[in-house]
Amino acid sequence: MDVTKSNFQTVLEALDDELENASFVSIDTEFTGLNSTEGRSNKLSSLDTPSERYKKVLNSSPQFIIIQFGLSIFRFDNSISKYVNKTYNFYIFPNTSTLPGLPDTKFLSQASSLGFLASQGFDFNKLIKEGIPYLNLVNEEKLRVILEKKSQSLHLHPDASSSQLSEIPADQKRFLNNITSRVETFLQNEENEEKRNAVLELHCNTIQNELIFSHVKSRYPNLLFESSKKTCNGCTVIVKKTGIQKSKTEPSETDSYVAEMQKVEDNVGFSRIIRKITDSGKLVVGHNMLLDLCHILGQFCAPLPEDYDDFKGMVNTFFPRFIDTKVMATTKPFRDLLQNSALDRLLNSLLAAPFRNIEVIPATGFPSYTDNFKNHEAGYDAFITGRCFVAMANYLEDISSSQSKTAAVHESLLVTPFYQKIFMMMVPDIPYMTISGPDCTVPLTFKCDILTILFRFW
Amino acid sequence: MDVTKSNFQTVLEALDDELENASFVSIDTEFTGLNSTEGRSNKLSSLDTPSERYKKVLNSSPQFIIIQFGLSIFRFDNSISKYVNKTYNFYIFPNTSTLPGLPDTKFLSQASSLGFLASQGFDFNKLIKEGIPYLNLVNEEKLRVILEKKSQSLHLHPDASSSQLSEIPADQKRFLNNITSRVETFLQNEENEEKRNAVLELHCNTIQNELIFSHVKSRYPNLLFESSKKTCNGCTVIVKKTGIQKSKTEPSETDSYVAEMQKVEDNVGFSRIIRKITDSGKLVVGHNMLLDLCHILGQFCAPLPEDYDDFKGMVNTFFPRFIDTKVMATTKPFRDLLQNSALDRLLNSLLAAPFRNIEVIPATGFPSYTDNFKNHEAGYDAFITGRCFVAMANYLEDISSSQSKTAAVHESLLVTPFYQKIFMMMVPDIPYMTISGPDCTVPLTFKCDILTILFRFW
Repeated sequence: MDVTKSNFQTVLEALDDELENASFVSIDTEFTGLNSTEGRSNKLSSLDTPSERYKKVLNSSPQFIIIQFGLSIFRFDNSISKYVNKTYNFYIFPNTSTLPGLPDTKFLSQASSLGFLASQGFDFNKLIKEGIPYLNLVNEEKLRVILEKKSQSLHLHPDASSSQLSEIPADQKRFLNNITSRVETFLQNEENEEKRNAVLELHCNTIQNELIFSHVKSRYPNLLFESSKKTCNGCTVIVKKTGIQKSKTEPSETDSYVAEMQKVEDNVGFSRIIRKITDSGKLVVGHNMLLDLCHILGQFCAPLPEDYDDFKGMVNTFFPRFIDTKVMATTKPFRDLLQNSALDRLLNSLLAAPFRNIEVIPATGFPSYTDNFKNHEAGYDAFITGRCFVAMANYLEDISSSQSKTAAVHESLLVTPFYQKIFMMMVPDIPYMTISGPDCTVPLTFKCDILTILFRFW
Repeated sequence: MDVTKSNFQTVLEALDDELENASFVSIDTEFTGLNSTEGRSNKLSSLDTPSERYKKVLNSSPQFIIIQFGLSIFRFDNSISKYVNKTYNFYIFPNTSTLPGLPDTKFLSQASSLGFLASQGFDFNKLIKEGIPYLNLVNEEKLRVILEKKSQSLHLHPDASSSQLSEIPADQKRFLNNITSRVETFLQNEENEEKRNAVLELHCNTIQNELIFSHVKSRYPNLLFESSKKTCNGCTVIVKKTGIQKSKTEPSETDSYVAEMQKVEDNVGFSRIIRKITDSGKLVVGHNMLLDLCHILGQFCAPLPEDYDDFKGMVNTFFPRFIDTKVMATTKPFRDLLQNSALDRLLNSLLAAPFRNIEVIPATGFPSYTDNFKNHEAGYDAFITGRCFVAMANYLEDISSSQSKTAAVHESLLVTPFYQKIFMMMVPDIPYMTISGPDCTVPLTFKCDILTILFRFW
C-alpha cells in the first residue's frame, strides 16, 4: 500500500496495533544516490576494516536522502501456520515550506540513481507533492523551542509581531498610503455578509512587505496579515478578517500551545514510524543494511557519530534486534548453495530446491506482491527480504537435528547467531560488522564461521 | 513547445535558420535550488561590491543545476509591423547512464525549490526520463579523448578488450563451466533462423562478471558480450550473435571513428543550443540574469573562474550582447513608473498605461502564451521577459524626441546603454554589474544614471 501525506495519519494511528501483533518486520529504502565522492580514499577496498568501512560510508553518503521506505509487517497466523503480510510503501520528502523553525533541506542526487528509479516506474511528482516530511530529534527539538518561544511571547506581548517599527523611506510613502487606503476599503465591507470571507491580496517587494507589517498591520488588530513569499523579490501579503472583535473567543494560552505542538508532531512525520518500530522491540530484517541503517539513523533519528563504536551504540539503541539477510546468504550453509546474494536473484534461488517455497498470505485490503514484481520499489524489496528470511530460517530448521521444529521461524534459535550483524561488501575476510560486540579480526574460515560453531556445539 | 530527448534533434536542426532570422531571443532557466550555504559570509548584503557578489554566487550555487531552459525567439515581421514568436521549453537532465567517459553528475536540490516547481505543475518524471543531456567543453573533451583512444586501440589491438586475463578462483570454476556450457548451447542454435535474434542473459555478481569477460568472451569472437549493471552487487551479461562471420563486413576504422564521434555529439546535447545562440551573435534578453548566466556558463560551457574579471571575459565571450530587463525596470525612467520589478508584476504593469500593450503573434504551430499563464515555466518566463523588453524599449521610443521612431525596437539606439549589465539584487548604490568595462563605484544618483546621461546628450 502506497503511503503519502494524504493517508499517513490513518496508517500511523493503526501502526501500534500492527506492530504489537507482528512477528517481525522487514524494511528497505530507496536513496537519491550512492557515491558522493570519487576520490580513491573513499573507494571501498577488500582490505577495509569495519571501522574504516564505516568512515567511508560516513564521508560519502550523508548528503543523499531516503525518498522511499518499505515496511513489510509479517504476522504468523497459528491457525493456518503461515505468515500473513501487510506491506507499506512510504513516499518521503523533506518539508517544502519555508516556515520559521523548519529546515529547508538541501540534498544531493546522483543522476544515474534517479534515472534508474525513473526507469523502474518511480513517481517523482508524487514524491515531491505528496511525500511525507520528517525531522530528526535535533531538528524536532529546535522547532519545539522556537514554537514554544513564539507561543509564550504572543501571550506575554500580544503585539510583539508588530513592534519592529522602522523609518519609512521617502520613495515608499506613496506606496504605503495606497496600501492603507485599500485596507480601509476592504475593512469597510465588514458588514456585507457575502464579503466576510473575502481576502485582500497586496503584491509588493521584500522591503514593502516589511513596511506593511511594521506600519499598516499594527493599525488593524481585527485583520490577519499573512505573508507568502513567492519569488526572490516578489511577495504577496494576504489580509483576512479574523472575526475576533465579534466573537471575543480568542484562543486560550493552552489552545495555542496545543496547536503549536501539533505542528511539531505533523512535521516529525515519517520519523515517528521509525520510533514506533524501535519502541515495538520487534525483530527488523533488512538486506545489505549498512547504507539503509546509516541513512535511517541520520535522516530520522540524529546525526551519525564520527566514532565507529558510537555508531554501534546508536544502531543498538534504535534497532536492538535486526538481521541482515545478506549476512545469512553469504554464510554457511547458504553460501555453498547460492550463487548470487543480490536480492532478486536470492529470492529466485530460494524459491527452488533444496529450499521450500513458503506461501505468504497478503492481509485483507493489501495487494499481493507474490506475482506482481516491482523490483526496486522499497515496499516490494522489503517484502521479498522478509520472504528470503523466512525461506532461509526454514531451511535451517529443516536441516537441524532438533526434534521440536517450528514453522514460526522468526522464533527459531537457529537465526539468533545472525542478530546485530551488518554485511560488508567486497570484504571476504571480515564479511560483516558485529554491532553487538567486537568485530572479527581474522578470516572467518579459521575462527568466526558462526554457523559452523553453532552446529558443532548442537 | 516542450523539447525533450524525443524531439531535440529536430529542434536543433531547425535552430540555425530560426536564429539567422531572429531579431532577438529571450531566455529563462529553472534551477534545483537557490542557496546552498547558510553561513553569514555568503549572505547577500546591500554593501556588496560586484566582485564580492560574484564570489558569493560562486560559493553558494554551483552545485544546483538548471533543469529547464526557456528560449523565446522574436522575429520582427515588417509586413505586419509586429513581432512573431516561437518559444521552446527545454527539459534538461544530466546523462543517467554509467558509460565510460561520461560523468555521473551529482547535484544539489533544495526541498523548497522542488516543492515550489511541483506546485506550479513542473513534471519531474518527464524531466528525469526525457530530459536532454549536456556536457560542458571540459567534459566533452574528456569524452572525446577516451572515445578516440578506444577507437584507435580497437583497430590496433582488436582483442584488447579481452586481454585482462586473471586467475579463476577455485570456488568460481563450477560457475564458469556452467556459463561456458550455456554459451555453447546458445551458439549451436546459430542455424535456426528463428533464434538468430535471441539473446542469452547471464546473471552474476561483479566478480563473476569480470571472469566472464576475461575467460569466456575471448573464446567466442562471433558473440557480442554486453554487461548491464543492475544493482550494487548483481549484474546481467547479455550475449548476442554479431553475424560478423557471415557478412564479413566489419566496420572500417573511419566508420567506427564516426560512430564514436556521433556519441560525443549526442551527449553534448543541450550545450549545443547555447553554442548556437553564441554563434548567432543575436541580442539575448533575460530578467535578473546573474544566477542564470552563472549556471548556464558553468553547466554548458566551462567551470566558472574564481576571478571576477575572468568571469566578465567569459560572459562577453559567450553572450557578447545581452540585456537584463531588471536593470531596465529599476533604472530611470522606469523605476519611477513601476512599483515592482519581479517578472510577473512587471508584465502586469507594462500592460497598462502609460505603456502600450504590444501584440506578439505566435508562429504557426506554436501555442499562444498570451492568455495562457504558466508562471515559472522557463519557456513562459522567457516569453514574458521578451514582451517586457519590447514594451520598455517601445516606451523609450515613445518619449524620445527623435523623429525616426522604430517599431522594431530591438534595433533602437535607446536600448544600447543597457547592453552587458547584470542586475544586482539589494544593492541600491550599485544596482548592476558592468560586464563590458569597469563597474560603477559611487552611487548612481550622482554619476552613472545611464539614461539621464543618454537623454542629456541627445
